[in-house]
Amino acid sequence: MEKRVFSGMRPTGKLHLGHMAGALTNWMKLQEDSAYSCFYGIVDWHAMMSDYANSSIISQNCKEVMLDWLAVGLDPERSTIFIQSHVPEHSELSLALGMITPLGWLQRNPTYKEQILNIQNKDLSNFGFLGYPVLMAADILLYRSNVVPVGEDQSAHLEITREIARRFNHFYGDIFPEPDTLLTPTPKVPGTDGRKMSKSYGNSINIADSEKEMWDKLRTMVTDPARQRKTDPGDPAKCPVWDIHKVFNDDHEEMEELKAGCLAGSIGCVQCKKALKEHVVATMSPVWERRARYEAEEDTLEDVLREGAKKARVVARETMDMVLSGIGFVPRL
Amino acid sequence: MEKRVFSGMRPTGKLHLGHMAGALTNWMKLQEDSAYSCFYGIVDWHAMMSDYANSSIISQNCKEVMLDWLAVGLDPERSTIFIQSHVPEHSELSLALGMITPLGWLQRNPTYKEQILNIQNKDLSNFGFLGYPVLMAADILLYRSNVVPVGEDQSAHLEITREIARRFNHFYGDIFPEPDTLLTPTPKVPGTDGRKMSKSYGNSINIADSEKEMWDKLRTMVTDPARQRKTDPGDPAKCPVWDIHKVFNDDHEEMEELKAGCLAGSIGCVQCKKALKEHVVATMSPVWERRARYEAEEDTLEDVLREGAKKARVVARETMDMVLSGIGFVPRL
Repeated sequence: MEKRVFSGMRPTGKLHLGHMAGALTNWMKLQEDSAYSCFYGIVDWHAMMSDYANSSIISQNCKEVMLDWLAVGLDPERSTIFIQSHVPEHSELSLALGMITPLGWLQRNPTYKEQILNIQNKDLSNFGFLGYPVLMAADILLYRSNVVPVGEDQSAHLEITREIARRFNHFYGDIFPEPDTLLTPTPKVPGTDGRKMSKSYGNSINIADSEKEMWDKLRTMVTDPARQRKTDPGDPAKCPVWDIHKVFNDDHEEMEELKAGCLAGSIGCVQCKKALKEHVVATMSPVWERRARYEAEEDTLEDVLREGAKKARVVARETMDMVLSGIGFVPRL
Repeated sequence: MEKRVFSGMRPTGKLHLGHMAGALTNWMKLQEDSAYSCFYGIVDWHAMMSDYANSSIISQNCKEVMLDWLAVGLDPERSTIFIQSHVPEHSELSLALGMITPLGWLQRNPTYKEQILNIQNKDLSNFGFLGYPVLMAADILLYRSNVVPVGEDQSAHLEITREIARRFNHFYGDIFPEPDTLLTPTPKVPGTDGRKMSKSYGNSINIADSEKEMWDKLRTMVTDPARQRKTDPGDPAKCPVWDIHKVFNDDHEEMEELKAGCLAGSIGCVQCKKALKEHVVATMSPVWERRARYEAEEDTLEDVLREGAKKARVVARETMDMVLSGIGFVPRL
């Protein structure tokens, strides 16, 4: 039987090449593997949770993320793609799970303690934020998911999800599989300043950037800092542009030439970046085209959202029927 | 414009004469008053909250409460009568309100602190139980209620509801009226042992009791404890049966005679109880008839539940549309 996969992203706005080379590439592989049935959700309730005082931006951010997903090739025919708040069963399951989730599990959650300590510019001492792992468990368990592709920083949350599933099953019958983590490879994608590519650092090359915007960022991107002049020998191992080559350049012969030229000081950074640009353009051209098409066709995007929510709700309702009858409520009529 | 009323009861099983003379009589008056539009919900999620480990009984308890409501005369044509879990918007609004509810409001809530301290035989240290006032606020605000008839022990909860409404409106626009409490008269209804009538004391005369069951309980009910023999003078002011007279006996002349006879020691307790029985039977006969009819017609009860949820959801969806668009989510399609 095929395994169910759930993964989600908070709608933070336009996605960048780091998202594409990391999570989204992994999601695509799962989508193409007939052993899996994939549910990918834009978790807008989670965005409200951390930005409740500045939530008016959520709608636009959701659209950007959805366009980026479709642009890179997430396929509504093969994956179930939806916005969390369009599937009201997420909130319902969250309520049910919260009834049996010990407060201590949430208060002792390392991510919670860390965020409360570190994030000073937002008020996070709300009931909803304490319940972050409960809502996340609901997101995953609503599809009775078997597998969750996660980055390592989220593994504690998945442990709580597994514990909540176990406790719920203990009281109300064998409803939820305990989902397994699928630790997926995440290549290093530095931003234009050499640090990890991240929206909050302002160093991102976005999926939605035009060829010119992309090239402007790439052209001025830092390289091996020890290399001041073209004739200085460089070290690809210390060059963030080289990390991007590794993601986008599949021409091994060219890679060897560039590497040798850099080490010898015979090929300049601009030449190396121009070579990279060609590969980025080759990979991104179909992505840009798909994005432009979906952006122009508002109706098509709406169709995707409508059909995605509809498909998600078929499974979500099945699960909620099991949950509500397991608890012992009067069946809905 | 008519004012919206919300009130709810936890499904604890068969209701007794205390419920009938108190809350339900008040609900009936509001139902008959064209100034009000009434929403009455059986709040089964709240039952799960406090009894999550013993929830299989909820379904039967909901049905008993619904039968009692209909029996005393709550009218599905005039009031909107429903089961909370049949209106999924309760959970959705609860999630939204939790995002802006400061943890401190919940942790400092006197009822919460008292219950955690006093209730030793249940595990209440769950996320859901801490969120009790949030779910209760959602119950009330989902219908944009103006008025909530409450007993005095619940006034702290309504204060939190008002604060949550105010805070939500502050962030997302003027969506919720701040509901007012309607402190309604609650006559004293002692149980068979003279203490307050309560299921947990095992001293209840239930709405569903047959005439024989009712009389067996009334016949053996305690009276003025100083009155050992019929010829001893009694004091109605110290007699719990007299309190029941005050609720059910509308024959003032007879009341005066009984009172004089009791004070003089010329009328015995059995005679007084027999007189009361006639009045209870007169009041309860149509109630018993209606209950038997609804109990026999499973389909009719199902129709009431179906139609009630449907009516409730019309308003609930309206409210959620305002809430979700106020927050700034992508509209559902």
